[in-house]
Amino acid sequence: MASITAAICAAPAARLGARRAQRPQTARRAMLRVAASAAVKYDYDNKVFEKELVEFADTKEYIIRGGRDKFSKLPEAFKNIKQVGVIGWGSQAPAQAQNLRDSFQEAGMDTKVVIGLRPDSPSCDEARAVGFTEADGTLGEVFDVISKSDMVVLLISDAAQAKLYPRILAAMKPGSTLGLSHGFLLGVMQNDGVDFRKDINVVLVAPKGMGPSVRRLYEQGKEVNGAGINASFAVHQDATGNAADVAVGWAIGVGAPFAFATTLESEYKSDIYGERCVILGGVHGVVESLFRRFTRQGMSDDEAFKQSVESITGPITRIISRDGMLGVYNQFSDADKKIFEQAYSASFGPAMDICYEIYEDVACGNEIKSVVNAVERFSRWPMGKIDQTHMWQVGQKVRAERKEDQIPINPFTAGVYIATMMATVQTLQEKGHPYSEICNESIIEAVDSLNPYMHARGVAFMVDNCSYTARLGSRKWAPRFDYILDQQAYVSVDAGTQANPEVIQAFKSHPVHKALAACAAMRPSVDISVGGDNDTTGVGAGAARTEFRSVAATTA
Amino acid sequence: MASITAAICAAPAARLGARRAQRPQTARRAMLRVAASAAVKYDYDNKVFEKELVEFADTKEYIIRGGRDKFSKLPEAFKNIKQVGVIGWGSQAPAQAQNLRDSFQEAGMDTKVVIGLRPDSPSCDEARAVGFTEADGTLGEVFDVISKSDMVVLLISDAAQAKLYPRILAAMKPGSTLGLSHGFLLGVMQNDGVDFRKDINVVLVAPKGMGPSVRRLYEQGKEVNGAGINASFAVHQDATGNAADVAVGWAIGVGAPFAFATTLESEYKSDIYGERCVILGGVHGVVESLFRRFTRQGMSDDEAFKQSVESITGPITRIISRDGMLGVYNQFSDADKKIFEQAYSASFGPAMDICYEIYEDVACGNEIKSVVNAVERFSRWPMGKIDQTHMWQVGQKVRAERKEDQIPINPFTAGVYIATMMATVQTLQEKGHPYSEICNESIIEAVDSLNPYMHARGVAFMVDNCSYTARLGSRKWAPRFDYILDQQAYVSVDAGTQANPEVIQAFKSHPVHKALAACAAMRPSVDISVGGDNDTTGVGAGAARTEFRSVAATTA
Repeated sequence: MASITAAICAAPAARLGARRAQRPQTARRAMLRVAASAAVKYDYDNKVFEKELVEFADTKEYIIRGGRDKFSKLPEAFKNIKQVGVIGWGSQAPAQAQNLRDSFQEAGMDTKVVIGLRPDSPSCDEARAVGFTEADGTLGEVFDVISKSDMVVLLISDAAQAKLYPRILAAMKPGSTLGLSHGFLLGVMQNDGVDFRKDINVVLVAPKGMGPSVRRLYEQGKEVNGAGINASFAVHQDATGNAADVAVGWAIGVGAPFAFATTLESEYKSDIYGERCVILGGVHGVVESLFRRFTRQGMSDDEAFKQSVESITGPITRIISRDGMLGVYNQFSDADKKIFEQAYSASFGPAMDICYEIYEDVACGNEIKSVVNAVERFSRWPMGKIDQTHMWQVGQKVRAERKEDQIPINPFTAGVYIATMMATVQTLQEKGHPYSEICNESIIEAVDSLNPYMHARGVAFMVDNCSYTARLGSRKWAPRFDYILDQQAYVSVDAGTQANPEVIQAFKSHPVHKALAACAAMRPSVDISVGGDNDTTGVGAGAARTEFRSVAATTA
Repeated sequence: MASITAAICAAPAARLGARRAQRPQTARRAMLRVAASAAVKYDYDNKVFEKELVEFADTKEYIIRGGRDKFSKLPEAFKNIKQVGVIGWGSQAPAQAQNLRDSFQEAGMDTKVVIGLRPDSPSCDEARAVGFTEADGTLGEVFDVISKSDMVVLLISDAAQAKLYPRILAAMKPGSTLGLSHGFLLGVMQNDGVDFRKDINVVLVAPKGMGPSVRRLYEQGKEVNGAGINASFAVHQDATGNAADVAVGWAIGVGAPFAFATTLESEYKSDIYGERCVILGGVHGVVESLFRRFTRQGMSDDEAFKQSVESITGPITRIISRDGMLGVYNQFSDADKKIFEQAYSASFGPAMDICYEIYEDVACGNEIKSVVNAVERFSRWPMGKIDQTHMWQVGQKVRAERKEDQIPINPFTAGVYIATMMATVQTLQEKGHPYSEICNESIIEAVDSLNPYMHARGVAFMVDNCSYTARLGSRKWAPRFDYILDQQAYVSVDAGTQANPEVIQAFKSHPVHKALAACAAMRPSVDISVGGDNDTTGVGAGAARTEFRSVAATTA
């Protein structure tokens, strides 16, 4: 385990606290040791990159600043790494591999980025198309690449990791670094009751956005320093003594303007949870239920789509990104504030109900087991399309005629959506996650990375550009948000129930707004830009896909 | 373990079959031993009651005939049982306790039925209202009743069983019998890695309907011999040598016209699965999606409700109950057959997808773990109402004006519903369940026990008269069926995709129709009768409830 000083101290201290009466001296010493860094949950020993202590509402966290001006430190961070093997070609791999290659070149390094794929994988052609070839030794067979790399960035699907990890770990060089972009594998190994081998580093860099946006913003960042997707990082195991620098170097190399410390476990729980909640599943369920409600109330299909989907993915997303959730609230008239408050108040509790269910299903290992089982069934039942229904056909037409500055900000829609977002936040907070993670997994990833994809081409373009784990989770939980909002929130509003002042007060005074403001200061200086239905900007190999192979890629 | 002869032989034989080349002699002997009872999956050693060998399509099973004329054998079956403690007062307990008390009296026995509840339980009043009182020693404290009973019928909620089983098992008399109406507890104990203590019998009687219908049909059976709800039974552990007779006596005592052999594991998997599929969750998702589709196509609300819900709970249910699924198909005109086939063909695959997901989530322990977690959250988020939405308000009005003989049989609705039913069947068959169980957990329980409740008062009256496990499961999976039908089946139909002849042929020639016909010969001679919105027939203490306490009863 790495030097997560505060976390390691905190746990015994909490336990000792309960027994203080019996062992006063020991307890006091432990408490004092913690007090010095009480508010800092995770802290790793970085030598190459400077960390900064940042206030997030009532807590403090260490963050590390990235950007192209830090590329000069990459040679030191990757000092013994001559080859980075990027394994797989899914959502993250094309983006990270190309970004790392570009960054290494920019830094004047000779560290090679090599793609590892099954020789018969249809992805080989896509990799070749962006310059990874057998000829120059940058494209090879999975296990061959693993055994020759000093760092293995493992970006095959979660399910493939679950299946192949014993072989992968066995193939790695002693003293090399295993890089994960998701703690999922730790969850699988916990279910299996096994540990990583001790002679390798295990680190994590988890960009807070799907692969295509990681590539897209990196490309935009070539013009504007600071464009990119923020990432969390963790050191799970430090065999070489510089694992933290490798991790941070990797984060900066793929273009993160800021990197936040976490652990593999905290990351996989918050990540698998967040994408099932407001980031993918929640927002999908919200807009389906709203579109139906608005049409039943007599709105035309076009208008209902504008007042639900367009309202969220357009102005509401933009305002949250700039001015937070309170920014949306504050710009409403008094009459619209009342509508927002009623919708928020009715929706928050039901959304919390589902958020808690999701969190606990993730935390106990159920969701990981379900994903592994589901992928085994793909050959018989591939994942179906989710955007061929009437509503999303309407959406295509609405987008074609869109006037960006005329999209309405519907206060009812805003109330339901922001209640779902706050429920996602509140659950993470109650479960003890740090604010950088809370803000990213419930707000920032939604408004700065995912919603723009739904805005560009509809729900499938957002959901199905993500990992299998995310796509399955979104399909599983969107309908649950939809039903509970319809059965409880809207029924309550229609019965004339007024806003609960306590619920509204809790929203207005929630510390997350301050934490989000701290995050906003670290927001990339450039918005993501992705083409609409007839525009290929940001679409293509290594960026977003518009068609997806549904058949399981259980190997790379 | 009990004398499940065929099952015990079958497993090694199957394994040996694969290695036949290596060990021909051993393999042949094992195969021969199995051949004698090849088609009989489960067989228990009953001495008091006669078993009959019945053909279910291409398999044979032992069944036991019940009915009021068998009550004379109850004294022998319960020979050492002077007190039956019925623990809890949920869906099954009021029904089973009253039925057993009535049957023992009818048989001239002095075996007492005693209810065990927490002294401060609000259920005590309901128990007293139907004649279980402290004064005559038929109402007492849970653990006091357990320790004094020769048979403990454990009917507290699944979640309460999960929490309390160590104390309950410890309190039981040596040589007494633990009676379960659900194998759920075995699933929990498997998750926990523990066994039952060896000095007690462990048996199961699982009535194939919710408690209120068990009581209602028993009462109707006082006039007509053979009315009642069929049950499955199992002997998991036989400490006294007559556990099978206790089990069958219990089944007959609560009014089962027929009892089918199973195991605790086969029961809990098929039961938890079935209620999530077509029996509760599936049918709810189907009618929500159909109502929406029909109104979007321009039907009035009333008409859409008739063509979806009323069509299923009225004529389609009645025809399946009498003449099976083919009976529904055969009564259509050629034109309507085409509509049915198109809807069936488009819906079967998507329904299979969800059915398989449910089965595997049940089989791996996920659903049991989720239920246990969910119940822990009830104090914060009680289960909400599911029938206050627009659609179910329409339903109340439609029911008030209903003319039973004018309810339409919509061929599209029939196609979607029967495809969901067949997907439920097909999955159970592929997973190796016996036909008596398949038919009950996917068809008979739906049409003879549950759908009549939705017909009487809507969806909540059906779902929320069931166990917490069922109510949670129905809320969880109904939206999944809804979404997948909308996203895949209806989209396919609207794109003009015609029926797939192979899918239709597989439906028409499926062996389940023959198996269901065998079951139909064992169908109770009386239909369930339950009052509608303004009629209290079959409603009240020990029968159906119209209001439900949502707060967790994690203890009795």
